[in-house]
Amino acid sequence: MSQLVHVAVAGAASATGEALVEIAEERGLPIGELHLIDEGDSIGQSLAYKGRNLRIRDAAQFDFGQVGLVFFAGDAAQLDRYVEPARLAGCAVIDVTSGKSATALPRIVPELNARRLASLDKPVCVGSPAPEATALAVVLAPLLDLLSFERITVTACVPVSSRGRRGVNELARQTAELLNARPLEPRLFGQQVAFNLLGADDTPEADGHTLLEKRLANELKQLLDMPLLPIAVSCILAPVFFGSSLSVSLRSTDEIDLDAVARALGQAPGLELASDDEQPSVVGDAIGQDVVHVGRVRHGLDDRREVNLWIVSDNVRKGAALNAVQTGELLIKHYL
Amino acid sequence: MSQLVHVAVAGAASATGEALVEIAEERGLPIGELHLIDEGDSIGQSLAYKGRNLRIRDAAQFDFGQVGLVFFAGDAAQLDRYVEPARLAGCAVIDVTSGKSATALPRIVPELNARRLASLDKPVCVGSPAPEATALAVVLAPLLDLLSFERITVTACVPVSSRGRRGVNELARQTAELLNARPLEPRLFGQQVAFNLLGADDTPEADGHTLLEKRLANELKQLLDMPLLPIAVSCILAPVFFGSSLSVSLRSTDEIDLDAVARALGQAPGLELASDDEQPSVVGDAIGQDVVHVGRVRHGLDDRREVNLWIVSDNVRKGAALNAVQTGELLIKHYL
Repeated sequence: MSQLVHVAVAGAASATGEALVEIAEERGLPIGELHLIDEGDSIGQSLAYKGRNLRIRDAAQFDFGQVGLVFFAGDAAQLDRYVEPARLAGCAVIDVTSGKSATALPRIVPELNARRLASLDKPVCVGSPAPEATALAVVLAPLLDLLSFERITVTACVPVSSRGRRGVNELARQTAELLNARPLEPRLFGQQVAFNLLGADDTPEADGHTLLEKRLANELKQLLDMPLLPIAVSCILAPVFFGSSLSVSLRSTDEIDLDAVARALGQAPGLELASDDEQPSVVGDAIGQDVVHVGRVRHGLDDRREVNLWIVSDNVRKGAALNAVQTGELLIKHYL
Repeated sequence: MSQLVHVAVAGAASATGEALVEIAEERGLPIGELHLIDEGDSIGQSLAYKGRNLRIRDAAQFDFGQVGLVFFAGDAAQLDRYVEPARLAGCAVIDVTSGKSATALPRIVPELNARRLASLDKPVCVGSPAPEATALAVVLAPLLDLLSFERITVTACVPVSSRGRRGVNELARQTAELLNARPLEPRLFGQQVAFNLLGADDTPEADGHTLLEKRLANELKQLLDMPLLPIAVSCILAPVFFGSSLSVSLRSTDEIDLDAVARALGQAPGLELASDDEQPSVVGDAIGQDVVHVGRVRHGLDDRREVNLWIVSDNVRKGAALNAVQTGELLIKHYL
């Protein structure tokens, strides 16, 4: 029987924080006392947990010595401020924010690289990958034994919730203004995102790539344990509330047996392969689901060494909160 | 001075037909008499042309012997029914629908391959490429002398207007239903398209690819005059009314000089290169514009033999009606 561990959720008021508390309860994460902490306006709000309303307290006043495990679910800056106090107090840390402090943290997706936890110094500090990296890794890892990967090209269509609740509210507001023929003044994203696609998920850095594009490529290489695999990534912002959609082209050094690919995907954990006449979509299939959906498995138009895929997944559950809770289960069972 | 030619526009009531008549007037296409024809409910409607309202007449009753040039702008089936009568009557044909009869027609984009018109039998029958193929060709052709193309990977985000006015109405209707919290019953596209992305622009064929995906690859090879170039294409349907957005990854056999690419794009006709801090989008830049916009010109994340691009263009103007009118100008001037 598992021990009970006292747990803190930092950034509890964020969408990911809320989902994390809900999923921890659903899955029966063996929590002793649960502490919710956050900053600013979120202090004093509350979340339901096991039939009680738990009040969100001020992270700046929190004594990390009270808990053994901290989830960071809020904005990245919060991780940067509090990860050191948490580690110094001896807490294990699971990051879902990817603040600056997180770039060096090993990325864990339990189905893929759980055993990596055994090699880490204590207190264990790990991160959940970007939702899109997790979805890609869950789909591509089962193909590693079958194909000799040469190169991966990905266009990731990222939802407005990648910017948190503000992104969700802005798409809803812009859409309502447009349908009511009122003039549109963008308050986020710099321009109209309703009924439009933006060529980058965020402002690109000096090298032309966005932070998410670089994270996605680096995390995918880490999860597949292929540090030298060439990966081209474009992240575009879509007028979609939740869920990421990925258009993927994978090239192998040899001709690809499409039936064998379908068999491998059909048997793999954590994913569901759509039939040939189904088109999985974030609204129809992915949202609220723990599994990643994959469809449109086909050769290149004139290249049998290429396979094309369409992948959709919930960016809050398996992409973030669920993966973090699953990692927490492993930590509590084996490493705390 | 140009001769005047009598012209018919078939499928005049379609969005492309309407745009075609408007652009023909704008650009002063040397038309003698203009005949508008269509089928079904569209018969009896009218369009404005040079200050008059022209009535749309029944295509089945039309005598093609009255005109020298026919534009086909409506649905593909209409081309299939009337292209033979038009050719037998000696008319030149410009197709913007790509019906079955059109698959063998040479594709023309005047900036790129106008001289091909000289080699064709009369009456000349040509087609406008898919909007996305035209946009890609306008951007990639100026790079042909600079780079040695090895492979192109494209994810094309296609708007609902690719299905005509029904597509536009369905996205508007679905969005309004959802914002008013009414239950959604999709009437087109088979599922919710509002705030969602569909993994294919249309039902894929038996080989797993959609018709548009195959058209796009074939037409691009033809326009670039590179019949053996490997091109991977995924066409996804986006909750956008007008304009296509393309995420492109181009690989060369040699290292790519990004400055030289930017110079070549900056000088090329028919396109506008965005500055590094701009993100062109269909709503902000492309719609109603005759030029194709390109931005996010950057190397691969870890591959200097790769260049990534983001391309947006109006699918009704340069993608269809404008290109057809420009082709008509050439035909009237040199070949009728």
